[in-house]
Amino acid sequence: MAALHRAVELADRGAGTVLPNPVVGCVLLDPDGRTVGEGWHQRAGGPHAEVVALAAAGEAARGATAVVTLEPCNHTGRTGPCRQALLDAGVTRVLVAVRDPWPTAGGGIAALRAAGVTVLDLPELAAGGDPAAVSVVSAAEEVNRVWLAAVRRGRPWVTLKAGITLDGRVAAADGTSRWITSPPSRADVHVLRAAVDTIMAGVGTVLADDPLLTVRDDAGRPSVRQPLRVVVDSTGRTPAAARVRDTGESAAGAATWIATAQEVGAGADGRVDLVGLLTELGRRDRRHVLLEGGPTLAAAALDAGLVDEMWLYVAPIALGAGPSVLQGGRVGTLTQAHRGELIDVARFGPDVRLRYRFETTSLGDPVGPPGPGVSDSMI
Amino acid sequence: MAALHRAVELADRGAGTVLPNPVVGCVLLDPDGRTVGEGWHQRAGGPHAEVVALAAAGEAARGATAVVTLEPCNHTGRTGPCRQALLDAGVTRVLVAVRDPWPTAGGGIAALRAAGVTVLDLPELAAGGDPAAVSVVSAAEEVNRVWLAAVRRGRPWVTLKAGITLDGRVAAADGTSRWITSPPSRADVHVLRAAVDTIMAGVGTVLADDPLLTVRDDAGRPSVRQPLRVVVDSTGRTPAAARVRDTGESAAGAATWIATAQEVGAGADGRVDLVGLLTELGRRDRRHVLLEGGPTLAAAALDAGLVDEMWLYVAPIALGAGPSVLQGGRVGTLTQAHRGELIDVARFGPDVRLRYRFETTSLGDPVGPPGPGVSDSMI
Ligand SMILES: NC(=O)c1ccc[n+]([C@@H]2O[C@H](COP(=O)([O-])OP(=O)(O)OC[C@H]3O[C@@H](n4cnc5c(N)ncnc54)[C@H](OP(=O)(O)O)[C@@H]3O)[C@@H](O)[C@H]2O)c1
Ligand SMILES: NC(=O)c1ccc[n+]([C@@H]2O[C@H](COP(=O)([O-])OP(=O)(O)OC[C@H]3O[C@@H](n4cnc5c(N)ncnc54)[C@H](OP(=O)(O)O)[C@@H]3O)[C@@H](O)[C@H]2O)c1
Ligand SMILES: [Zn+2]
Ligand SMILES: [Zn+2]
Repeated sequence: MAALHRAVELADRGAGTVLPNPVVGCVLLDPDGRTVGEGWHQRAGGPHAEVVALAAAGEAARGATAVVTLEPCNHTGRTGPCRQALLDAGVTRVLVAVRDPWPTAGGGIAALRAAGVTVLDLPELAAGGDPAAVSVVSAAEEVNRVWLAAVRRGRPWVTLKAGITLDGRVAAADGTSRWITSPPSRADVHVLRAAVDTIMAGVGTVLADDPLLTVRDDAGRPSVRQPLRVVVDSTGRTPAAARVRDTGESAAGAATWIATAQEVGAGADGRVDLVGLLTELGRRDRRHVLLEGGPTLAAAALDAGLVDEMWLYVAPIALGAGPSVLQGGRVGTLTQAHRGELIDVARFGPDVRLRYRFETTSLGDPVGPPGPGVSDSMI
Repeated sequence: MAALHRAVELADRGAGTVLPNPVVGCVLLDPDGRTVGEGWHQRAGGPHAEVVALAAAGEAARGATAVVTLEPCNHTGRTGPCRQALLDAGVTRVLVAVRDPWPTAGGGIAALRAAGVTVLDLPELAAGGDPAAVSVVSAAEEVNRVWLAAVRRGRPWVTLKAGITLDGRVAAADGTSRWITSPPSRADVHVLRAAVDTIMAGVGTVLADDPLLTVRDDAGRPSVRQPLRVVVDSTGRTPAAARVRDTGESAAGAATWIATAQEVGAGADGRVDLVGLLTELGRRDRRHVLLEGGPTLAAAALDAGLVDEMWLYVAPIALGAGPSVLQGGRVGTLTQAHRGELIDVARFGPDVRLRYRFETTSLGDPVGPPGPGVSDSMI
């Protein structure tokens, strides 16, 4: 199983550049267990992990075992399915850590078996209680959690991030909020922003701070690839001159969607229906939403069971007044509180980053067929 | 200097049991640098560190060097001054890491020198820039920070502790607050409580939660030694039946002071003058106040520059409504925020403990003469 843990490591290198595709890692072993090729999926539109590994192995792929973090695709796109590439190269065994939940690309295991390849289906072994299988399957699930959850649920993974004071506030009483956190924390946020395909904020934040919501490097230059910017704005109050509407050069061509209740549908409170909004984003091929606030939208999303992860950068400063990171939520008593799980603690300059995972509604089967955009991007 | 770092370690063992005295550690070295005796001050009323070390060394103390974290006392109490005990035992050299700021006990260095003992005054060397001296002096200052600050300022060290949600709240919207944090966090709080000599809360917390504010062990049994309980209550609203007033068996005889504006004096807002209150506690020999909330009193104490340390136990739960850990503070804009320094991060069960140090007003000379109680407790 060491090769599978290595494949997970390789897969992780694609995080942030492969969306809307999954991260995938592949290791090829010869009959003596020696690595003869490695590959990972580097960016949407680029070659799949298996193809990269096969190219590296060349003739040595004949008779080899392919160890892959995700079921090889069975879908004819620009390059043909990986299932076929593995067969053509003479691979005789395949170890698969996670089955492809996406109906269009799935079926690789069955097709390989039909062609006479031995497939070790690790989720099956893990379900049977094999501890080594459980360990690699969960590592492979974890490295691909964003894509797997997005495809299984039909709506994007949501990461809520905020820079807060030690008393949990995101702004002072007069609304000032720049900067609560230190430059190292803010640099980490830009890494996070660069890894998502969507950045979301409430119209309250747009009105208060007029943010650009683009991804920039240390020198403030916008990156080439920009996430979609979504403003949650029930009645379309976003000002015509708001910087978030700027799709020109200074925004590196970042697109903007002002999501109104009229377009998306309204909840019981007349505001944008957040489940509908995320489902629509899923249909538009969005896998990972970074929710940058503010507090009202953040609390509403958490109450709706839509927040998967929370990244809090806690600065060593205290205010004693001003809006908290989550405001106006529906929880009335302590036993109703949302319970998360601490993933890790890290320090960025004088700040502490706390990361939490939350149980969201339904991590099961896809809630609807993937939209037409999905197959394009998988090619 | 290794012996001094060892002496600091020894001193630390007295933390929590020596108040209102300082923690002190002592190592005796023979002329070849071998340790011949060690001691630390274990509890108020017990023998001083030097006396313990001399007893351990016996005859080997003759000609030895005494390495002490705090200037040997020069004050005749029940046992006579350590300065004299060192001379009687034949110690010929003394290394002192911190000078005694307390006028009654101070003067040990001068008296030792007058008697012909060589005294290495490390604060002097540290002031001259000697890096080894700087390191040991700061370690010895740190281990005794509570006592030194209390004596130098004439008012106790204040540690604010709170169990908070990840959005910085101490209760839900309906006031429920038991329990936000996990049993391991609450056990750590009982260790902290046992190390202080005073527990303080605002009348708002007393009215809301009716806490006992006693120190209890894991099984809920009250400890023998109980801190003084102080309720900050401008107009004396603490109910006659409040549990904090219980000084009987279930409270293990813990004393209670309902501190009113009439008794202590009022600030401009008509509420209890917090500087006056802490100065009065200093006069009553109190060195370490644990401020257990609530949010209004906590913010007022921080705004008044009275909070030295903050211990926040952050639970992995989110509320989105309810009182924050600091409420109703006077900071209006971000540039006025109180800036602390992160001391350390630790995990207690699912919670994270964040500890911060704050700059408080004047860490200089004593603001007034110590009250009569002080000399009693040093004996
Ligand atoms: N430090 C940080 O990391 C950070 C980050 C972001 C914001 N902030 C601060 O947060 C403050 C702004 O907070 P805010 O709470 O006013 O803004 P917000 O959460 O960004 O926006 C709230 C608004 O979103 C709209 N909305 C639409 N559908 C919604 C739904 N289903 N649920 C909830 N809201 C919905 C509502 O307005 P409509 O009904 O009109 O649509 C609502 O008033 C500013 O002071 C800003 O500086 C700080
Ligand atoms: N999770 C936790 O760790 C924790 C700990 C404590 C409390 N809590 C929660 O906090 C809530 C109570 O909060 P609270 O803010 O009402 O209570 P509080 O801070 O305990 O008490 C505030 C009161 O203290 C009095 N006070 C006297 N002098 C003052 C001064 N100089 N500055 C400020 N206050 C002064 C004031 O009443 P007067 O003017 O009448 O004197 C003031 O209203 C409860 O829900 C409780 O559960 C949680
Ligand atoms: Zn493929
Ligand atoms: Zn002494």
